[in-house]
Amino acid sequence: MTAEIISIGTELLLGHIVNTNTAFLSRKLAEAGIDVYNTSVIGDNPKRLTDSLNLAARRSDVIITTGGLGPTVDDITLETVNALAPKNTKWIKNRIGTAPGLMADWKDKVIICLPGPPRELEPMFVNNIIPFLSSAPLRVRYAVDNSGSWTIKSRTIKITGLPESVVNNKVLGLLKLKPPTTVGIYAKLGQVELKIMSKAGSEKETSYRISAIEKKIRSRLEDYVFGCDDETLEDAVAKTLLKKRLTIAVAESCTGGLISNRLTNVSGSSKYFIMGLVAYSNTIKENALGVSREALQKHGAVSKEVALEMAKRIKLLAGTDIGVGITGIAGPGGSTKSKPVGLVYISIVMKTKRIVRELRFKGSREEIKFQASQVALDMLRKNI
Amino acid sequence: MTAEIISIGTELLLGHIVNTNTAFLSRKLAEAGIDVYNTSVIGDNPKRLTDSLNLAARRSDVIITTGGLGPTVDDITLETVNALAPKNTKWIKNRIGTAPGLMADWKDKVIICLPGPPRELEPMFVNNIIPFLSSAPLRVRYAVDNSGSWTIKSRTIKITGLPESVVNNKVLGLLKLKPPTTVGIYAKLGQVELKIMSKAGSEKETSYRISAIEKKIRSRLEDYVFGCDDETLEDAVAKTLLKKRLTIAVAESCTGGLISNRLTNVSGSSKYFIMGLVAYSNTIKENALGVSREALQKHGAVSKEVALEMAKRIKLLAGTDIGVGITGIAGPGGSTKSKPVGLVYISIVMKTKRIVRELRFKGSREEIKFQASQVALDMLRKNI
Repeated sequence: MTAEIISIGTELLLGHIVNTNTAFLSRKLAEAGIDVYNTSVIGDNPKRLTDSLNLAARRSDVIITTGGLGPTVDDITLETVNALAPKNTKWIKNRIGTAPGLMADWKDKVIICLPGPPRELEPMFVNNIIPFLSSAPLRVRYAVDNSGSWTIKSRTIKITGLPESVVNNKVLGLLKLKPPTTVGIYAKLGQVELKIMSKAGSEKETSYRISAIEKKIRSRLEDYVFGCDDETLEDAVAKTLLKKRLTIAVAESCTGGLISNRLTNVSGSSKYFIMGLVAYSNTIKENALGVSREALQKHGAVSKEVALEMAKRIKLLAGTDIGVGITGIAGPGGSTKSKPVGLVYISIVMKTKRIVRELRFKGSREEIKFQASQVALDMLRKNI
Repeated sequence: MTAEIISIGTELLLGHIVNTNTAFLSRKLAEAGIDVYNTSVIGDNPKRLTDSLNLAARRSDVIITTGGLGPTVDDITLETVNALAPKNTKWIKNRIGTAPGLMADWKDKVIICLPGPPRELEPMFVNNIIPFLSSAPLRVRYAVDNSGSWTIKSRTIKITGLPESVVNNKVLGLLKLKPPTTVGIYAKLGQVELKIMSKAGSEKETSYRISAIEKKIRSRLEDYVFGCDDETLEDAVAKTLLKKRLTIAVAESCTGGLISNRLTNVSGSSKYFIMGLVAYSNTIKENALGVSREALQKHGAVSKEVALEMAKRIKLLAGTDIGVGITGIAGPGGSTKSKPVGLVYISIVMKTKRIVRELRFKGSREEIKFQASQVALDMLRKNI
């Protein structure tokens, strides 16, 4: 059984609203084991809606429309669908808003019309439509072999410290897998994600298959993997800090508090996060943090030496096990010939280790800040 | 001239990613006066992509695809488009990522392929594609009658400090406006936005109409309006600080560095932002910041008194014109009967003013942190 989603509304076509309904419906349909190969958006235009419905009826079993059911003149769905003379029309009660949904038979296919507002559409779809689409008569009608009913599950493996192209090469064979189990690769800022998806007859089977692929990914990418699904990089750092009962303090210049903010986004972070200092000016680096004037004058505020001193000083000041120092040029201003925008030094000082790394990032001010925080957290994860 | 957008990616079809590219492209095309009547999403399937391209070529002048240009095996766009033997192919440089875009002639139509990541697609579209689509030869080719062409413009008015229902009531008449000029209301975390849209024969006319509505909105919402379009609350604070040549330092507890981070997201913030201190533990509040032990013991760390002392002490420590102190319970742990999760005290100390506010927020840890930072920045905007 295949379903197709047609979203109706000029406001969607104009980009005035982001289409979250299609993402919601697609996810729920996939979970119910129903394939979606096409989704589209059209404006409030009866002729183009008719064309779209006809096209959908040629290629899909179930046609789902969203929007255009309300009482105003630009709500064209009901009138257009009625003009096509569907059979066995059933109304679906709307418990949140005023416009009901409808279900009908048309051209040997099923047509389902849902209201546009997500808070009306979502409960209606979950409570009324999914049970109907999963019912035996419909599955028989579209020759869905029930012994072969299936479920889809996914798991996202999160990687940092490697560019997309390198991750791609390391798991190339897995990326070529064909359904029912596939792996997709997604590049984000400072992070690459591998999404394992599996479609099978039972949850147990999908979980088993996903775990088998996850094992392979982890063995190829080793400790570049920092977590999966909702787990963030700061969660991974937090876990290790708690396990090893270590405390941390952070002195930031170019990241402006972002690292402290990320570390304290984790619930319970007061157990390990003691102090953050955003030392934006040289005066504060010297007076409040205690970085030596010599280092600042000789090497400049953006230097290995100052990053290291910042880490040492904040560790001492806060009395923690770990000190982090970070200094750089987030841009767009403030660069010199030898110190371009994106140049960042990150230092970690612990009882037994002193690390300083020089990095060069590209992007906007906020992107440079984020990438720097990402590398700092990753250095923590790997070294503590 | 009509354009059509085809988004390519199984992750979009499965609802794992919300399609923001289509909204962005639609908006930019509307602003350029180019009609979009159809947008669709298809999976990583060459056969279905070919079908979609053929359908698009029958009904639209310009076909824009997004996604599937990368180096990985599920990137099918290039191969599929090349198999259709387009002519006059031109590559478009990608300044952010690796995969270039392309433009070509095909079946008397124009086909444009853009990368999927928004931060790569957006500058490429604005800098390369919009100028091309607005060029005279293309307009002649698709018989765009410039005399009858239209343009759509929008402006988003941003409000903070009032709930959606109150904003709604204050501008009720405007929300009922019918095309060609309309106003929509959108509630976000700690912020309400009013979007004015207008469609007219010239940019001058749309701008005139939008400005007229903006004036009405501003007169009804007064200084609850903090900016419009891309302007953030931190931009508004930055503008005032720069204008009045004031410097600032922030002592944060529950927000964990978020306020410093937001203030330093503004380019050029080193001119006014001097120092941030994240004093998470009582020891740091006392030793590094200098909050009195008496206040901490008598009133507790989450109290009006401690917020005020934090603001005073950081102002003194950093030698700035303004000091901000913030303490509270971001949750989910750490609450007591008298001090529930979401209780936050914010203080601002200046030469002539001392303010402390008590606030109670709802939501997740990150939501409480964000709302607290939003109120703190808004207090700054209104009081400096």
